[in-house]
Amino acid sequence: MAKELTPRSENYSQWYNDLVVKADLAEGSAVRGCMVIKPYGYAIWEKIQHELDRMFKETGHVNAYFPLFIPKSFLSKEADHVEGFAKECAVVTHYRLKTNPDGSGVVVDPDAKLEEELIVRPTSETIIWSTYKNWIHSYRDLPILCNQWANVVRWEMRTRLFLRTAEFLWQEGHTAHATREEAEKEAKKMLNVYADFAENFMAIPVIKGVKSANERFAGALETYCIEALMQDGKALQAGTSHFLGQNFAKAFDVTFLNKENKQELVWATSWGVSTRLMGALIMSHSDDDGLILPPNLAPYQVVIVPIYKNEEQLATIDATVAEITQALKAQGITFKYDNADNKRPGFKFADYELKGVPVRLAIGARDIENGTIEVFRRDTKEKETVSINGIENYVKELLADIQKNIFKKALDYRKSVTRNVDTYDEFKVEIEKGGLLLCHWDGTPETEEKIKEETKATIRCIPLEGDKTPGFCMVTGKPSKQRVVFARAY
Amino acid sequence: MAKELTPRSENYSQWYNDLVVKADLAEGSAVRGCMVIKPYGYAIWEKIQHELDRMFKETGHVNAYFPLFIPKSFLSKEADHVEGFAKECAVVTHYRLKTNPDGSGVVVDPDAKLEEELIVRPTSETIIWSTYKNWIHSYRDLPILCNQWANVVRWEMRTRLFLRTAEFLWQEGHTAHATREEAEKEAKKMLNVYADFAENFMAIPVIKGVKSANERFAGALETYCIEALMQDGKALQAGTSHFLGQNFAKAFDVTFLNKENKQELVWATSWGVSTRLMGALIMSHSDDDGLILPPNLAPYQVVIVPIYKNEEQLATIDATVAEITQALKAQGITFKYDNADNKRPGFKFADYELKGVPVRLAIGARDIENGTIEVFRRDTKEKETVSINGIENYVKELLADIQKNIFKKALDYRKSVTRNVDTYDEFKVEIEKGGLLLCHWDGTPETEEKIKEETKATIRCIPLEGDKTPGFCMVTGKPSKQRVVFARAY
Repeated sequence: MAKELTPRSENYSQWYNDLVVKADLAEGSAVRGCMVIKPYGYAIWEKIQHELDRMFKETGHVNAYFPLFIPKSFLSKEADHVEGFAKECAVVTHYRLKTNPDGSGVVVDPDAKLEEELIVRPTSETIIWSTYKNWIHSYRDLPILCNQWANVVRWEMRTRLFLRTAEFLWQEGHTAHATREEAEKEAKKMLNVYADFAENFMAIPVIKGVKSANERFAGALETYCIEALMQDGKALQAGTSHFLGQNFAKAFDVTFLNKENKQELVWATSWGVSTRLMGALIMSHSDDDGLILPPNLAPYQVVIVPIYKNEEQLATIDATVAEITQALKAQGITFKYDNADNKRPGFKFADYELKGVPVRLAIGARDIENGTIEVFRRDTKEKETVSINGIENYVKELLADIQKNIFKKALDYRKSVTRNVDTYDEFKVEIEKGGLLLCHWDGTPETEEKIKEETKATIRCIPLEGDKTPGFCMVTGKPSKQRVVFARAY
Repeated sequence: MAKELTPRSENYSQWYNDLVVKADLAEGSAVRGCMVIKPYGYAIWEKIQHELDRMFKETGHVNAYFPLFIPKSFLSKEADHVEGFAKECAVVTHYRLKTNPDGSGVVVDPDAKLEEELIVRPTSETIIWSTYKNWIHSYRDLPILCNQWANVVRWEMRTRLFLRTAEFLWQEGHTAHATREEAEKEAKKMLNVYADFAENFMAIPVIKGVKSANERFAGALETYCIEALMQDGKALQAGTSHFLGQNFAKAFDVTFLNKENKQELVWATSWGVSTRLMGALIMSHSDDDGLILPPNLAPYQVVIVPIYKNEEQLATIDATVAEITQALKAQGITFKYDNADNKRPGFKFADYELKGVPVRLAIGARDIENGTIEVFRRDTKEKETVSINGIENYVKELLADIQKNIFKKALDYRKSVTRNVDTYDEFKVEIEKGGLLLCHWDGTPETEEKIKEETKATIRCIPLEGDKTPGFCMVTGKPSKQRVVFARAY
């Protein structure tokens, strides 16, 4: 195999990178920290977009589009916000190039300097709330429930494909409400949409929680999040939904006339998921042979490979496959029939395993005689020979089973590495083993900071569900309201 | 009516701007030249995207995503290309802000200057061909048929919503081929896809042609285009498809081993349409009361407005409408039922006319008794009272008729203002009246330039179809191969 991956046990990080590149998901580019999302990777992202977009619309949201650039002065209007983003901003300072007087290419034209620099959006709260100011006058204009699919730029120093790139693709919802209650309800609603999507489409179990103050979004009063666990025992934040209070309404002076004819500040939320989800998807399920995709997000759920010795055999197989694919189509199953003759079946098998196609059907001349077909499931690598008759129903059930099975596998793994830890000494030992540690914490940023410095572990979230028994902080012994989730994280 | 538009006869340009803003399609933003695409406008763009994306995939293309930024040196690699775009580039020079020492907000951190400036992509040929270099080794790697949906930035000095904005949304296809013939075929194929889309979805008749050298894309050997005519007699370029020859392969050293085991340069095309199509859509069909949308691209094709005096009547109407909407849904017809009680029917009628909803159904208590419903079609403003029984079939046929009718209206108008002009004196008079002038031209850039300077008219295209009779240039009297299309243009 030309496309062998570094085994996970040897170097997890290298395995990840090998997989992303060799399965044709993404690659680095000539621009530092920016990636190229290749067609196969982009096809998965399109499936993610499609399902999320449907879920957003079903919950009453509409799409819109706001400018790529943000005037520098806008960022400064919300103090925490600018503090959070200023250090990683791509700044546009000029709007023209000119030929270098010495003839060697082009240089920035010093006469084309912008009066005010523009920031390539790292997130769009400021430009959107400056727009909402014109849209909102009375309670009748509320709520506003907008989402945008866009690219954003955060100048990260250490980048990794999908997980942390200078430019990434995402959606950002920005809603405006008349009351605090309604905004808080919206933020929680979108958290549930994300959790639903993660578990039922990505097959990734997630913990719903709120972030501690240290980990909160710059400008939010509360950040809700879904946290996932990767196979190497590290956590990954998969989506966030922020209750922004009236911070951005204050910063951009957005008020409305309420039913009692009084001016009030508007309440806000924002929520987003990004191409980072691709990283989560890859690291949750895949193995040393390649990607394992949940059927609900696979670009094609089934690949069919013919095994033949001559053109005549291929013609017979083609005819049978035509019937099979028609039956699959009728069941809403997506497929690819790969009868290209420039690659051997063994090469194709390995390539589709690398690409994580959930089900492979292989069919040869002998199969046609017997009315059978070989079915291979990518998740468990089990092979079976079944009857061609009714194959569409067999595959349909199999796909549902694979979707369930990879979720269960991820959930079982998470359970196996989630444990209560009660002393800081034990914590220091356990954190080295990875996984999620449920511990009591006194609720102070100082204690959290100390733990982070000494162990590289952060509070991933304060879970919304599950055990809420109070206790005492493992570090300071002070009272704790409930256990929180600690882990090292991506 | 609070939302009255400036009549077209009074000020066409103001009418356009009024309409874009008041129909909630788009508006200006705090960033010079950048627009906000509002939810209703974006919903139309989403329909455009959806149909085009389907057509691209049906013709074998896949989507991918390439970086927003282009290293400055890349732009210089193709001489014509840099010449064409250097004057309108947004340039990123720094990657960090810092707090102003005097405490007043943030300033660009001079220590965070990029070694090489990055250009916000005005188009992606250079970054994509630098990537293709790694993807292409042998003839087996060809063709590559990629498309990307993206935002691009061209720093235009005079901007107009949708028609010319500093940032706009578009798709750009970039294909790589082993032979000249295949690339030329691809460029023409995509031109036909665009023409098909323009005529059958946007209901805009277009002329397919090639651009003269003066109007060619910077870096192309041939630019194919579809040209549309707006109601004010000005032309608008609605889409372009470029045969790029081997220019970008040369610039980025992209070669492949052909079947004879020889290294050859790769052949290229690129093709794109943008949010400019929204401007074409608006200006082709709309009237002084607002937008007229083709049913094939309307966010909702039907709006239903109840007319009632009390809650009891509304309840009865709601029940009947529930049956109607179910029947519409079964026919694949999209609709909105507006029973909001904070606006009067007359206000709603005007608002949906402004928004161009193709069909309005109005239903009152008397209608329920009679088993009838009032049907209003936006294009001709005809009203009819028809039976509720079978309304879904009536509406379905009506939508098809509207789609056909607005195309025919646009085509009839174009025919009425398209004429042959044989002398330059006549040309100077006729061009003031607008419309398309079919004239003989000697094929030289000099003559074209002279005409442009003296009359502000440009050659929109050299038509691929229609009359190919040779003649003599109206300006120089030199031989001309065929008539070409002159017009003033957006």
